[in-house]
Amino acid sequence: MRHKSFEDMDCPMAQSLEVVGEWWTPLILRDIVMLGLTRFDDIQDDLGIAPTVLNSRLKHLIDKGLLERRQYNEHPPRYEYHPTEAARDFEPVLKALFKWGLKWTTSPAGTWS
Amino acid sequence: MRHKSFEDMDCPMAQSLEVVGEWWTPLILRDIVMLGLTRFDDIQDDLGIAPTVLNSRLKHLIDKGLLERRQYNEHPPRYEYHPTEAARDFEPVLKALFKWGLKWTTSPAGTWS
Repeated sequence: MRHKSFEDMDCPMAQSLEVVGEWWTPLILRDIVMLGLTRFDDIQDDLGIAPTVLNSRLKHLIDKGLLERRQYNEHPPRYEYHPTEAARDFEPVLKALFKWGLKWTTSPAGTWS
Repeated sequence: MRHKSFEDMDCPMAQSLEVVGEWWTPLILRDIVMLGLTRFDDIQDDLGIAPTVLNSRLKHLIDKGLLERRQYNEHPPRYEYHPTEAARDFEPVLKALFKWGLKWTTSPAGTWS
């Protein structure tokens, strides 16, 4: 384990972070919930994330009830990841993060356009 | 580095995560912005976080302009960490995370009361 779990903390925010707080996870949810990407390869291309990391994050989100996996190709096996209501309900958090970033951070190019 | 940086990604959400996305950081901001804790020892007691980790997260938040450090005791040296406007402006994200957790997670005791 690279960090202590928040599982035992009696706070809804800590429990949220236990589900969605890992590095990469909010961006994966952005891709699926806000951009409508569902296929492993599309998400991987968009984020430039290592396949093993993406796989582990998706598995965690399925376990926690935020995603459903559906096979769309048999040979080779290929899967889509669809958001559940719990994932769609996470959109206000993503929007608040986006809004904060727009105000308080600068783009790598220097300014948000 | 334990993970790839989001620094080069041209998205306000990725830039937000670069500032506040590390493990523990949202809970540290909750303690400072919402609970009004400012002293190192109080935050550490509240979270049960390792001092070295807390120190590194606070330093990062100072570097990124979310906290200001003020000395309140000389011998031994003790510091308070005060939120800037950027940190106070992060409250909607914390509240959205709290609200999501209340709806979609369960407390370690079984249910949120």
